[in-house]
Amino acid sequence: MLIVMQENASEDKIKNVVNFIKEKGFDAHISKGAEHTVIGAVGKNITDKRDIELLDGVKEVIRISSPYKLVSRTFKEEDTIIDVNGVKFGGGHIGMIAGPCTVESYEQMEITAQKLSECGVRCLRGGAFKPRTSPYSFQGLGEEGLKILREVADKYNMIVTSEVMEVAQIPMFLKYVDILQVGARNMQNFNLLKSLGEIRKPVLLKRGLSATIEELLMSAEYIMSGGNREIILCERGIRTFERMTRNTLDISAIPVVQKISHLPIVVDPSHATGLRDKVAPMSKAAVAAGADGLIIEVHHSPETALCDGAQSLYPEQFKDLFQELKALAAIIKKEF
Amino acid sequence: MLIVMQENASEDKIKNVVNFIKEKGFDAHISKGAEHTVIGAVGKNITDKRDIELLDGVKEVIRISSPYKLVSRTFKEEDTIIDVNGVKFGGGHIGMIAGPCTVESYEQMEITAQKLSECGVRCLRGGAFKPRTSPYSFQGLGEEGLKILREVADKYNMIVTSEVMEVAQIPMFLKYVDILQVGARNMQNFNLLKSLGEIRKPVLLKRGLSATIEELLMSAEYIMSGGNREIILCERGIRTFERMTRNTLDISAIPVVQKISHLPIVVDPSHATGLRDKVAPMSKAAVAAGADGLIIEVHHSPETALCDGAQSLYPEQFKDLFQELKALAAIIKKEF
Amino acid sequence: MLIVMQENASEDKIKNVVNFIKEKGFDAHISKGAEHTVIGAVGKNITDKRDIELLDGVKEVIRISSPYKLVSRTFKEEDTIIDVNGVKFGGGHIGMIAGPCTVESYEQMEITAQKLSECGVRCLRGGAFKPRTSPYSFQGLGEEGLKILREVADKYNMIVTSEVMEVAQIPMFLKYVDILQVGARNMQNFNLLKSLGEIRKPVLLKRGLSATIEELLMSAEYIMSGGNREIILCERGIRTFERMTRNTLDISAIPVVQKISHLPIVVDPSHATGLRDKVAPMSKAAVAAGADGLIIEVHHSPETALCDGAQSLYPEQFKDLFQELKALAAIIKKEF
Amino acid sequence: MLIVMQENASEDKIKNVVNFIKEKGFDAHISKGAEHTVIGAVGKNITDKRDIELLDGVKEVIRISSPYKLVSRTFKEEDTIIDVNGVKFGGGHIGMIAGPCTVESYEQMEITAQKLSECGVRCLRGGAFKPRTSPYSFQGLGEEGLKILREVADKYNMIVTSEVMEVAQIPMFLKYVDILQVGARNMQNFNLLKSLGEIRKPVLLKRGLSATIEELLMSAEYIMSGGNREIILCERGIRTFERMTRNTLDISAIPVVQKISHLPIVVDPSHATGLRDKVAPMSKAAVAAGADGLIIEVHHSPETALCDGAQSLYPEQFKDLFQELKALAAIIKKEF
Repeated sequence: MLIVMQENASEDKIKNVVNFIKEKGFDAHISKGAEHTVIGAVGKNITDKRDIELLDGVKEVIRISSPYKLVSRTFKEEDTIIDVNGVKFGGGHIGMIAGPCTVESYEQMEITAQKLSECGVRCLRGGAFKPRTSPYSFQGLGEEGLKILREVADKYNMIVTSEVMEVAQIPMFLKYVDILQVGARNMQNFNLLKSLGEIRKPVLLKRGLSATIEELLMSAEYIMSGGNREIILCERGIRTFERMTRNTLDISAIPVVQKISHLPIVVDPSHATGLRDKVAPMSKAAVAAGADGLIIEVHHSPETALCDGAQSLYPEQFKDLFQELKALAAIIKKEF
Repeated sequence: MLIVMQENASEDKIKNVVNFIKEKGFDAHISKGAEHTVIGAVGKNITDKRDIELLDGVKEVIRISSPYKLVSRTFKEEDTIIDVNGVKFGGGHIGMIAGPCTVESYEQMEITAQKLSECGVRCLRGGAFKPRTSPYSFQGLGEEGLKILREVADKYNMIVTSEVMEVAQIPMFLKYVDILQVGARNMQNFNLLKSLGEIRKPVLLKRGLSATIEELLMSAEYIMSGGNREIILCERGIRTFERMTRNTLDISAIPVVQKISHLPIVVDPSHATGLRDKVAPMSKAAVAAGADGLIIEVHHSPETALCDGAQSLYPEQFKDLFQELKALAAIIKKEF
Repeated sequence: MLIVMQENASEDKIKNVVNFIKEKGFDAHISKGAEHTVIGAVGKNITDKRDIELLDGVKEVIRISSPYKLVSRTFKEEDTIIDVNGVKFGGGHIGMIAGPCTVESYEQMEITAQKLSECGVRCLRGGAFKPRTSPYSFQGLGEEGLKILREVADKYNMIVTSEVMEVAQIPMFLKYVDILQVGARNMQNFNLLKSLGEIRKPVLLKRGLSATIEELLMSAEYIMSGGNREIILCERGIRTFERMTRNTLDISAIPVVQKISHLPIVVDPSHATGLRDKVAPMSKAAVAAGADGLIIEVHHSPETALCDGAQSLYPEQFKDLFQELKALAAIIKKEF
Repeated sequence: MLIVMQENASEDKIKNVVNFIKEKGFDAHISKGAEHTVIGAVGKNITDKRDIELLDGVKEVIRISSPYKLVSRTFKEEDTIIDVNGVKFGGGHIGMIAGPCTVESYEQMEITAQKLSECGVRCLRGGAFKPRTSPYSFQGLGEEGLKILREVADKYNMIVTSEVMEVAQIPMFLKYVDILQVGARNMQNFNLLKSLGEIRKPVLLKRGLSATIEELLMSAEYIMSGGNREIILCERGIRTFERMTRNTLDISAIPVVQKISHLPIVVDPSHATGLRDKVAPMSKAAVAAGADGLIIEVHHSPETALCDGAQSLYPEQFKDLFQELKALAAIIKKEF
């Protein structure tokens, strides 16, 4: 932590700050510049930097240790590759996850899985618990949905991902699901993150609507500090003033994350844009920018989908898109 | 719902849209303008407007029924007054809630409650469950904290509010707490909102960091539709590009909410700004703008507080501030 | 314009609104729904919709005519192709613009132009007027810079673009420059836009830092309504809460603009991200998403650049990137 | 400037950074912490910190000198009071500026000025140049408008403020106007700021829609460095995701600015909210938070106003509001 004193800070004020941080358990290194005295506070303790900022004569307090350790490239230089039964994310491998917003029935999942696996998709998605904005909307099939997902996936030799909503659901999810998703609204549900740190299955962690990249990494750190090192980050759009798309997909998060963290980052163009005809261009953009995976909503009959039909691709659209994506990936020396 | 067709939309396309909405259970009223045909869809069904926007020839779909009913002034014209043991919010009454970020010990709460009640504060706050960004930070005293809160409040004839984190905690909170707080991160935790709709104690619902006012009202609607009509809304700052304050306190939310809803709205200047010296000016601004209450962090010894000391007022600061606030309230014909 | 009345709006209030809009020169069409009466206001007059929203009994006023006409696909269905001496933007053609932030000297531009033209770049960029945040920073060479730009470009058979800052500079720019740039801060400088509507050279119009896509299109409409139909739009990042990149490049603006407008849209990844190592991934993302062009900062010696060296590519980096971009473009059936 | 090296930065990398900053004209002070080596760069030179951030082994570069000097409290501790013919802003004085959006005619200004001066207002506002979003809207009376403004103000012993749009207009404005306004869109028009630094009349500088407080202060610094020390800052709302108000009025900017700068800050609630019924609560909030002035749109007949009638107060509304504002000011020991 660096404490920058105001230009006119007296010796007394400097001494006072030094005493304060020593009491908090830090060592103090003073260095005097032309304009400002800077005090380096060295130590492992945790403190609220605002407490120091409120001391007399202090201009600014700057945290220099990253708030995250385990997720950073400093801790682990090479890319983490998450490998689930041969479906790989990271290190040159792009994982493709596809499927409907919600599991509606066995038949629906069966048709979808068949079509997707024909295209070469090996990871199936589908929501089972859907707490919705309106209490009158379809709320998902619950455990029954997870069972269907598992059964269908097994039939087509696929793996499965679905969103877990709360701590109490974790044991149930472990029975059926290969990758546990944390939704954007739960990105800072620390109890959930803590519990997911104790399991030994991969977690797909979505960025919150108004979360910075640093906060996303801190949430990943939370899981990792519990011992679970299999985390896939997911960019799914942030809230901005622009309203022509549901959210603004922050494609630059891909190279930013990849520079500071070894964890793979995938992109969800369906939820970010909310409109079917924007899914293809944004999927291509994500792959070209270096994403380690995609999670795309596909429904065999979007017009009759119980949820998010408007942003779901038709299976044929998806098939064409996937072809193009593979070709793009080859150009930048990656592969699905 | 109004469906605006593109300028050149053919009769076939119009017919197609009409059929689509009839299938979804709506009546269709067509009206042809100079440039655009507009189709009114009348009915009670719920549909995703994007499904219609994707139909050929459609320019835009506009929802005209408000997504919220029970919370609106159309439903109930006069102000809702939440009255908890004589502490009132709304309808000309400004409720003052004060106390530390976290319950740390009986002694701490005792001193604080004594000082606050001397100033005339009758509602005490204090967190018992504090899932924190860092797993190494103090996580709150749990149920023990709630007990302390209750005991101290009873001693000084105060009422009590504290944040409930998940559905499972509700029964415990009902034992100790008079007003249940929902934190900003849980504003769209629909399971929690649903359960809070079933209780019969007031709920203080905080606006999410990136939630629009409309979304805040929809979350309140969620609770109200369960039968619980005692809701206090809370503005606590939104995330913007400005970084000199922790969040940007949206003071204009006060008159905006008061125009469209009958529910009281209080302001939390402590979390919004994150800095002690900004709490007083923003509290005064909130009262002058017509807020129905304030929730202010006060600690008897902010330097040694386990949490958010930097944004907590000293008891003497609070005392002076409260005097000024009462005088300001009188000018605009309200009272604490 | 559609005027939605409140649920309980009386006949008197409806009549009052009808009279008001008739006075403003509109025809009124009333249609009564189950909950709301909707009044359609038909006419060509311009009015401030807030004037109507303030009338008694009005719930909401919705503009349904687009505020822009000439720039929309309704007005012109096929893509506009801007062709400057064979350098094309739009309709499957991706235009590449490259060069340094600022023209520093003849030698600098000579080296750069030579290297770029070897790569196949045919449009050279370079700033001549640089009003900077600090009054002590380098402010550009002025007209001398434009002369150098022109001379060097002619030598290598290139075309030239540079930013025009104010109305008075237009005649000077017309002498030297092939495409006149409007910077982000001038996107709503209506006097400048008006004057640019009267010239007959292409204009490259950058999106403002906090401008919506609709506002960008309205600014283009301003130029077009003056008679100049050669406009290239430019996405260069918007201001959001995220700070790891200078701005958030809104890649989704590409398909959004292309759906509603016939004008080409190019992307400036250098200013959006502000960091050299993010330029390549974001350039690829832009091309993959369907951008009609790119504008990239390249400097022969970024370490000694007088401006924005940190976001300038080395010529060799650019060369490799351009190769990759051409390959990506081929996949999506476009070409540079 | 502080350069924080990465944890594993080698001696060679540190040496390389030291050499780089020495070449740029800085002295280097190295201090080694437990985790990070920090290099202090001391000197007056201007450099782009990104150039250093791109060097090998550098984690982060932190600017510690404020980018502004003259506007800061470090430079001048006591409040600057702008006194124009007895109308004062700052240091306990709240200046009230009122009047219509645009000067429409002598009669209009005459009625308005008479009513306002009866209320005790002594500073009149009115726009003369109004470049509008639509080329078909009223564009203002130009110099004729300024003449009317001056004439009417003289009759009622008032002072006058109006918005100057470009450098070439400054001499004309100096003839008629007492305080020159810079609009939000021109906040970073550095040529204009430079020229305003050379005049000797007060400047009212509005915050840009997406400008940080730091950027606002830097623009003020630009004017001040030219020698003009009479600057009034103006908060007028920032762009956020919330759409129920036109912009989000950042009331917390008032105490934030007042802590770091000696310049007065006024608030424009009319443009910020865009709606008449929000002007009163936001004006009260501004005064209660400590604003040094207000600028409020008042029109004698808002229904027939040529511009912004929807956000203009009726003279009687204004009169009542001003009474309340004076009473609020007294509570916080300030006066109009």
